[in-house]
Amino acid sequence: MAETNRRVLLARRPSGMVDATTTGMAEEPVPRPGAGEALVRVRYLSIDPTIRTWMNDAPGYLPPIALGDVVRSPGVGEIIESNTERYAVGDVVYGMTGWQDYTIADGGTRVMQVIPPGVTPELALNLLGMNGMTAYFGLLDVGAMRPGDTVVVSGAAGATGCIVGQIAKLKGAGRVVGIAGTDAKCGWIVDELGFDAAVNYRDEDVAGRLRAECPKGIDLYFDNVGGEILDICLAQLAMHGRVVLCGAISQYNVARPVGPANYLNLLIKRGRMEGFIILDYLDRMAEAQAEMFGWVVEGRIRSTEHVVEGLDRAPDALNLLFTGGNTGKVIVRL
Amino acid sequence: MAETNRRVLLARRPSGMVDATTTGMAEEPVPRPGAGEALVRVRYLSIDPTIRTWMNDAPGYLPPIALGDVVRSPGVGEIIESNTERYAVGDVVYGMTGWQDYTIADGGTRVMQVIPPGVTPELALNLLGMNGMTAYFGLLDVGAMRPGDTVVVSGAAGATGCIVGQIAKLKGAGRVVGIAGTDAKCGWIVDELGFDAAVNYRDEDVAGRLRAECPKGIDLYFDNVGGEILDICLAQLAMHGRVVLCGAISQYNVARPVGPANYLNLLIKRGRMEGFIILDYLDRMAEAQAEMFGWVVEGRIRSTEHVVEGLDRAPDALNLLFTGGNTGKVIVRL
Repeated sequence: MAETNRRVLLARRPSGMVDATTTGMAEEPVPRPGAGEALVRVRYLSIDPTIRTWMNDAPGYLPPIALGDVVRSPGVGEIIESNTERYAVGDVVYGMTGWQDYTIADGGTRVMQVIPPGVTPELALNLLGMNGMTAYFGLLDVGAMRPGDTVVVSGAAGATGCIVGQIAKLKGAGRVVGIAGTDAKCGWIVDELGFDAAVNYRDEDVAGRLRAECPKGIDLYFDNVGGEILDICLAQLAMHGRVVLCGAISQYNVARPVGPANYLNLLIKRGRMEGFIILDYLDRMAEAQAEMFGWVVEGRIRSTEHVVEGLDRAPDALNLLFTGGNTGKVIVRL
Repeated sequence: MAETNRRVLLARRPSGMVDATTTGMAEEPVPRPGAGEALVRVRYLSIDPTIRTWMNDAPGYLPPIALGDVVRSPGVGEIIESNTERYAVGDVVYGMTGWQDYTIADGGTRVMQVIPPGVTPELALNLLGMNGMTAYFGLLDVGAMRPGDTVVVSGAAGATGCIVGQIAKLKGAGRVVGIAGTDAKCGWIVDELGFDAAVNYRDEDVAGRLRAECPKGIDLYFDNVGGEILDICLAQLAMHGRVVLCGAISQYNVARPVGPANYLNLLIKRGRMEGFIILDYLDRMAEAQAEMFGWVVEGRIRSTEHVVEGLDRAPDALNLLFTGGNTGKVIVRL
């Protein structure tokens, strides 16, 4: 066991990308688990855009991270000491570990989920974790995808987007078009993941390509990016089209977000635009995880991780999401 | 019978408000009804914001009015000659009369609805017509209003808005706040129509007043105006809040509509913004009309019309909607 607990603390609220002044590394003694508590050695961090929003001093679905606090983050760890029957030494657990080497799990506000044997930490963090669940419920529940639908997803080579497209195909979408930022990503989602088409938003005329690829309009747009692409998709909505607001990666780092000027097409097309937070689906996750795990076992869905090594590189890993430097789910291995 | 049919034709597409060059008056012989047709003497025109949108050369839920065509408009008329059992001479009918003295009704694309005896043309055009139905289904079906909801409606002294607020109260809304453009309108909706509060958007700090009047946030915002007020309401949505997009009167006359920058609050609040077109509810109107007529008979809802005299003043009547010169439903009496 290391003698100290390294912790990445929020030092200053970033105004754009995270930089060297945003966080600082602190060292503390490894915490001691009290009665009813267990000690967790953190092994993996889940790097998600939402972490960047928690760094802002703005109300959200969770409070901002306080200055001087460890950066809030989901992660996976191993129980190395336990004073509770809830966790056994050796259990692999998933929960809000934070960006640090060690944390405490309990049965209350710091509860963690024990990952069943047979499930890798990567799968738990990705397909069976928040990204997979977000893709599943966003597409099928919020978006109410129907067989035959034309589905467009942005951030399509990102952690959630690449799962959305795969589930859409598995559930009988008529056409699945992904939007991504490099030719390599576009090739990957079509050739490896089975998307029907891909649009490179950096090089191509997105509106023109989408018109060509979605001749009947867009029944369901799964939005991970916001901004101009959201506006383009709103303009091409089919009748009763749905926009699922999952994220807005193009807007998290800007001072004044831009609204979608084409929102009035929701009126003409009797469409709807709806946001959701996956935390609202906690009580339904077992059903989704079971179906997802079935697809994994059958080899019908791919889990893809982009691994960054070392706790000290967690801030750089977060920036990858905004530069588009990742393909699939970004995780940090400690 | 007048010897000619006066017709207001679309001469030029307006870029902002309708002006003297937008329309021209033509005179033609009174049309002759053929087999299966009836002749309608138009008595009232329904003046609606949507007519302005039909004047644009832009795709909508109906095609644009062609240059040189009579201005498309709902209205009420009287059957004065009939070659079909569908209509009897003396029947009062509701349908797409256009801005003209006479039109033809048939059983096909020019079908009209016979207004039952006992229902005034004003009631047929307003509470039992498109405005009443739009308010009813927009609030209760699209917006899924629940008893106890805090409801905010903009354009609250307008034709649809003033009905929305009254239905919300009748259906048990916890709090109904209207937004209107003059103190007189604000006084009217509170004192005469029973709204709980009103905000004068021209003189008052809308965001501050709404925060004070809606301490638990806005459960349902019925949007008739778009623009800045939509953005303010999005920012104050309650959890699972709903925005019903009915219109965007602040945007119809501008070259580049502005999108709601606070749309991301839909994500944080698990909210939804949804558009609708009342034409989709034709098969359910009877139920709504029956309930509405019941409220009328019981004296629990008010129908308010702003009457403009003369076909030649129809363009001015349309402009009233954009200057806020009306209180209640604008109709033109021929």
